[in-house]
Amino acid sequence: MNCKANTDEKTAIQKLLTISQEINELNNIEALMHWDQEVCMPPGAAGERANQLATISRVIHQKETSPVIDDLLKESELSLDKLSEKDRALVRVMRRNYNQKTKLPEEFVAKFSKLTSQALQCWIDARKNSDFKQFQPFLEKIIDMSLQKAEYLGYTDHPYDALLDLYEEDLKTDELAEVFETIKTPLITILDKCRQLKIHKFSFEKPFDEDKQSEFSKSILRKMGYDFNRGREDKSPHPFTTSLGHNDRRVTNRFQPDSVDFIFSAFHEGGHALYEQGINKSIAGSHLDTGVSLGIHESQSRLWENMIGRSLAFWRHFYPELQKAFPDHFNAMSVNEFVACINQVKPGFIRVDADEVSYNFHVLIRFELEKALLEKTITCDDVPALWNRKYKEYFGLEVPDDATGVLQDIHWSHGSIGYFPTYTLGNLYSAQIWHTYQQVNPDYQSILENGDLTMIREWLCDNIYRYGAIYPPKELLKRVTGRDLSAEYLINYLQQKYCT
Amino acid sequence: MNCKANTDEKTAIQKLLTISQEINELNNIEALMHWDQEVCMPPGAAGERANQLATISRVIHQKETSPVIDDLLKESELSLDKLSEKDRALVRVMRRNYNQKTKLPEEFVAKFSKLTSQALQCWIDARKNSDFKQFQPFLEKIIDMSLQKAEYLGYTDHPYDALLDLYEEDLKTDELAEVFETIKTPLITILDKCRQLKIHKFSFEKPFDEDKQSEFSKSILRKMGYDFNRGREDKSPHPFTTSLGHNDRRVTNRFQPDSVDFIFSAFHEGGHALYEQGINKSIAGSHLDTGVSLGIHESQSRLWENMIGRSLAFWRHFYPELQKAFPDHFNAMSVNEFVACINQVKPGFIRVDADEVSYNFHVLIRFELEKALLEKTITCDDVPALWNRKYKEYFGLEVPDDATGVLQDIHWSHGSIGYFPTYTLGNLYSAQIWHTYQQVNPDYQSILENGDLTMIREWLCDNIYRYGAIYPPKELLKRVTGRDLSAEYLINYLQQKYCT
Repeated sequence: MNCKANTDEKTAIQKLLTISQEINELNNIEALMHWDQEVCMPPGAAGERANQLATISRVIHQKETSPVIDDLLKESELSLDKLSEKDRALVRVMRRNYNQKTKLPEEFVAKFSKLTSQALQCWIDARKNSDFKQFQPFLEKIIDMSLQKAEYLGYTDHPYDALLDLYEEDLKTDELAEVFETIKTPLITILDKCRQLKIHKFSFEKPFDEDKQSEFSKSILRKMGYDFNRGREDKSPHPFTTSLGHNDRRVTNRFQPDSVDFIFSAFHEGGHALYEQGINKSIAGSHLDTGVSLGIHESQSRLWENMIGRSLAFWRHFYPELQKAFPDHFNAMSVNEFVACINQVKPGFIRVDADEVSYNFHVLIRFELEKALLEKTITCDDVPALWNRKYKEYFGLEVPDDATGVLQDIHWSHGSIGYFPTYTLGNLYSAQIWHTYQQVNPDYQSILENGDLTMIREWLCDNIYRYGAIYPPKELLKRVTGRDLSAEYLINYLQQKYCT
Repeated sequence: MNCKANTDEKTAIQKLLTISQEINELNNIEALMHWDQEVCMPPGAAGERANQLATISRVIHQKETSPVIDDLLKESELSLDKLSEKDRALVRVMRRNYNQKTKLPEEFVAKFSKLTSQALQCWIDARKNSDFKQFQPFLEKIIDMSLQKAEYLGYTDHPYDALLDLYEEDLKTDELAEVFETIKTPLITILDKCRQLKIHKFSFEKPFDEDKQSEFSKSILRKMGYDFNRGREDKSPHPFTTSLGHNDRRVTNRFQPDSVDFIFSAFHEGGHALYEQGINKSIAGSHLDTGVSLGIHESQSRLWENMIGRSLAFWRHFYPELQKAFPDHFNAMSVNEFVACINQVKPGFIRVDADEVSYNFHVLIRFELEKALLEKTITCDDVPALWNRKYKEYFGLEVPDDATGVLQDIHWSHGSIGYFPTYTLGNLYSAQIWHTYQQVNPDYQSILENGDLTMIREWLCDNIYRYGAIYPPKELLKRVTGRDLSAEYLINYLQQKYCT
């Protein structure tokens, strides 16, 4: 960290690091408040927790937008080449953060925040009534303000670039469009193939015991190498992962009486948490002590959930454990049948219920609509009809109503234009990284069959986790896989899995 | 709240209230961090949580010592008579808080904090070695700095007054000395009487199941009227109550395999929590939204724990529930024998294990030593011999070593000189308040025998809880009981209980 011991005057980078740590600590405190809200908080406290969160946000905002940061960044940016790799990365990430927080005028932020809070209320009603028209005026304003937001943030080619960059550093509209064009046709072919296959579907007679689900979920996390000394698993309405500090990366899970979802949530959230737990302690507590982007983060959850957690090889090893935990459910079922059920492909209307092939179409549709709205080649008026036409085109399905269609997700009402693509990005990255792993470890099948997940975690840790946010996503991907993002890996992975 | 709607300019008191709420919110956030540390936090996160706590403390300290508060207080103090009772109380409490936080110079606070953190480490070692000499240099420095602290804080008669006032508003050394003088002889007489009684002691063959303890503890809380919609009970190494907001007053309990302590911890912490839950919502979220002092708070925990939770009348009602929950332990034991066991008086060396008669001597001994140390009539050199002499004098016991004697408690190493008396104050208040309750409700025995704890809670709520910190402790006591603090009630209560 460019250490100058025994001098009284701290360097700019040392000062930045101190500020970074303080901001990071406050963010961790805010994360604890959210975690407690989902996991522990008594219902009566909901209103006051919202106020407490607003207060801590104000404190954080004040620290994050202090002009001192800008001064120190400018000073550091003047002599970047004299800094270590880590320090340069700190400057890069803090600059991004500072710009994102300060480029938008305060009145704009307040206005947008008011708009989205009203939009959220309206979306809840509109979805209940399954009536897009009701929500449309809000979406129109959100698109208008998102364009304005893009102007404030700045971009070279496409206003959407400015919004995408908020979620995925340096992601461009053009490359995304190209990726989606590349995967569209092959994925439709795969979907067609899958339609001809036999349907495999669980039908359980008894409910799953909640305590046993929780126990099994923990055993998966242990198997993955999740460190319970530096985290914990709890129950919450929706599974999530959160970071309360370098040594406190918590996950949650949801336990439903009639579903095996808890198994894949354990893998998914475990994947997010392994990433955070694997960050090297030399960057603990700074802006670098986090996964570098939403896309890379999602790639780790998806890799564990899909490539490992849905593989026949892993379940050859682990299925007896599942049978032991739930004999009533699985003793009469073969491992092949189990794996067929958990990999069933069947296009449907709802993104969050989608299998790993059709999932990408849900994202693609959002992307196409968001892009066209920002380009003003369509208006909000056109959205529901276009939505329905695309579900017909890609899935051959007739969307029955707006609630099942365009109104299903909360994100637009939050004003999160540009967020959806990171989901597919996660799938693309995960396939590309998993391909590399297979190249480096040709015996990966026997590693899975022996249940040696620790070996896989260690490879991921050495190549991805430990760097935290040091390398931007594109650079990280290239370092790990030797190539820029390419759609072929996801297509190959899915073709191999579903068409051979 | 002296509301001036429709004017743009807020009054000083309105501005104070806003600041008060923000400070209160930050304090609640800090309380959540402590609660999580004791109840949930994974062990690996201990170090970083300490840093996060230091950071939030700095944020709070900055808000609490802002000169704006002083200006607004001065403005409000100029026209106190124009303010409502509540607003005057807010000014009183915020003034106390502001003065306490600002009268000590920052270097002094830093020096004291460094000293006590070293003292704590030393105390841990010294207690392990049972060697007071090892700890003595730190105690000497702590006494010196406490005298200095008293000078900074200011006092009229006795430096100890300044320290007592930190824990109990307006408590004076002289009145405390008088109270202890008054109770000393009668309590020794009661102790002598108790020595002649038969020993009643539990001897359980089976351990208590932890889950059943937790369930029973919750049933006590429900019985008391604790609102689980605005709180929760968890397990922690030491039972405590904490406030995370007006609608979030949490308690914890400890479950040991061989002890009924969990029952009395439930009553004790429940008593603290009922106080906080009973505060009127018109003062929610301000400096008034808390119990007014440590002594009054302790009076509520002790009233529920001892006057109610150890009464034969209540157990006549509730003992069948206990037998049902733990048939192996209690089915063969009569309610009279159970109540005799939970009220066994037997002087011992350890304060935290003490019965309700001898408890006060543990406090008295600390008080006498602290007072003499501050008056410099003794030195730290004299402390262990004096300690042991007093245990001989009051209890007839030979203290075997320093660990069992003068080194047993952590408080001095924390620098908390003046804290101990609030424990006995709690006992005195509780007896005086319980006496009043009995006067107003002469059928209190049948109320207890019917298990109508709600009636008792409502009376306490109407007379104490709902006011929060509006009335200073002395004024509150007089409003509730019609009299100033008097030692006779505790003596009468104990005489009646143990000598008739």
